[in-house]
Amino acid sequence: MIDRLACLFFGVFVVTPAFAQSTPLPSWHDGPTRDNIINFVERVTTPGHPDFVPENERIATFDNDGTLWCEFPVVQLAFVSASLQQMLPNHPEWKEDVAVQAVLDNNLDYFLKNGEQELARMLALTHSGMTREEFRERVGEFFRAAKHPKYNVAVTQTAYQPMLELLNYLRSKGFQTWICTGGGAEFVRVISENTYGIPAQQVIGSIGGWKFENRDGKSVLVKTPELLLKNDKEDKPVGIAIQTGGTPIFACGNVRSGGDIAMLEMARNNSRPNFQLLIHHDDEEREIAYGEKDNASLEAAKEQGWQVVSMKNDWKTIFPFQKEASNDR
Amino acid sequence: MIDRLACLFFGVFVVTPAFAQSTPLPSWHDGPTRDNIINFVERVTTPGHPDFVPENERIATFDNDGTLWCEFPVVQLAFVSASLQQMLPNHPEWKEDVAVQAVLDNNLDYFLKNGEQELARMLALTHSGMTREEFRERVGEFFRAAKHPKYNVAVTQTAYQPMLELLNYLRSKGFQTWICTGGGAEFVRVISENTYGIPAQQVIGSIGGWKFENRDGKSVLVKTPELLLKNDKEDKPVGIAIQTGGTPIFACGNVRSGGDIAMLEMARNNSRPNFQLLIHHDDEEREIAYGEKDNASLEAAKEQGWQVVSMKNDWKTIFPFQKEASNDR
Repeated sequence: MIDRLACLFFGVFVVTPAFAQSTPLPSWHDGPTRDNIINFVERVTTPGHPDFVPENERIATFDNDGTLWCEFPVVQLAFVSASLQQMLPNHPEWKEDVAVQAVLDNNLDYFLKNGEQELARMLALTHSGMTREEFRERVGEFFRAAKHPKYNVAVTQTAYQPMLELLNYLRSKGFQTWICTGGGAEFVRVISENTYGIPAQQVIGSIGGWKFENRDGKSVLVKTPELLLKNDKEDKPVGIAIQTGGTPIFACGNVRSGGDIAMLEMARNNSRPNFQLLIHHDDEEREIAYGEKDNASLEAAKEQGWQVVSMKNDWKTIFPFQKEASNDR
Repeated sequence: MIDRLACLFFGVFVVTPAFAQSTPLPSWHDGPTRDNIINFVERVTTPGHPDFVPENERIATFDNDGTLWCEFPVVQLAFVSASLQQMLPNHPEWKEDVAVQAVLDNNLDYFLKNGEQELARMLALTHSGMTREEFRERVGEFFRAAKHPKYNVAVTQTAYQPMLELLNYLRSKGFQTWICTGGGAEFVRVISENTYGIPAQQVIGSIGGWKFENRDGKSVLVKTPELLLKNDKEDKPVGIAIQTGGTPIFACGNVRSGGDIAMLEMARNNSRPNFQLLIHHDDEEREIAYGEKDNASLEAAKEQGWQVVSMKNDWKTIFPFQKEASNDR
């Protein structure tokens, strides 16, 4: 009884931030990857250290698909498919549309053969013509219903536990955490705050066109099929420049398409101390193992000294819902 | 002596925020304009009030030229002129270029006659081909040298004192203050923090193209002549959507070209409580008096219930450097 009271009493003095600081990144295995991240963050946030970077320049940018959450199946394409399905009854003409049918049949081969133009057309069909509010409502509805086919959890639950910890850790050290995705900014903004703690204004993504027009006596923003910026590869630094007005000192992407190489190079060329993290999907058992056709991301990592994350060896846990299982490892 | 000690002692308890709150907007005359601003801000920031708006939705957007600082002469055009002058020795071919000569001769008529295309060409000549760092350096150099022709002070000194107070007041109440200018975002970002306390990432403006390319073995962003977004009129809401991901509850523009009507309408159509402020330049003595050809801004203000600011009657002081003189008024 005295013990319990003492515990309650002294419990008041357990200061959460200090506790949190003493164990950052708990889902990362001890080892050089975790050490190098923490070492960098400590250096740039310690006043008086030669590598100190002022808070307003502590910009960290993260790719989304394959970096912050599972990229198979591609979430935004699942939304395209769900939307086409939903819109089909009002568009009898789509019965003759080979591309629409290919989406509905999950026929990826069609798009691999017919290139990006057909895919862009499917994106336009499902991402334009409606107001911002209507679009967001539809995306929200999709996320409330969609389950990951392998894990049978909500898609937003496939955010990687170690990355959620990294985002929190960086923010606790005065970093701004930004998403820099090849996907649509408007699409990701619907779930960025609740999933990652990242506000809409810190989501950089592909930018669709808008028209400000009068509908039913009210001025509203309507999405157009135009594409102002495809925020991928060499255009990721462009998206970052447009929205942040700055240059990241910390950038994180993943191996698959080479889509993040330019973003990591941008951070690498920052005149401030900087850090690059490249996620390698090598955990066949707990996630999916895949590489990159030309191996360009891993080669750039070797050449430029980026830190490579082995999901298999560096992460104790992959997904929040696997947390308990992983404690047994 | 005892009094002095008491004063020093009790002085410790004078809490600055409370003091600041008791006298917001000191350069605004008492009256309905100032009252309505303060009344709105109090309503949306008082927890439990039916008009309360959570902090992350307290977005305030401000036009720059003619709203935050003096717009005659147009600052960015002065930069174009200064740049052409500086670049001239390396471009002998410009001697035959009528538009370049018109800029150098301050011949506005030429551009009024030959439309926006020629002006866009002059902007491209002076705003592209260089890296981001080179551009920023040149803009910084311009601002260090440029004096306002009428007031003979640095251009950044022509920021309006009452608006500087309004920006500070809103920020003290948990608002995010954003610039939404028709000018180039990259141009205004160079001076936004020091002049207005607005960080680069909260500057929305016209967006020029960029190319991420290798120069001298280093990957850098190079400005291209492309124009991704002209952030004016109906495209101001587009720029706001792209960068904030939200909708302002407070928007402020000025009478001259109708360039801010759409931005104020966007705020007016926010489902949250909202406020619109329209600056009218009617002070011939202390600034410059001018209206708008078709009077559209003032008519929209009447129709939609925007608050109109009379610089003559609502502002005790116009510029910081006139502060002392105005105390005598």
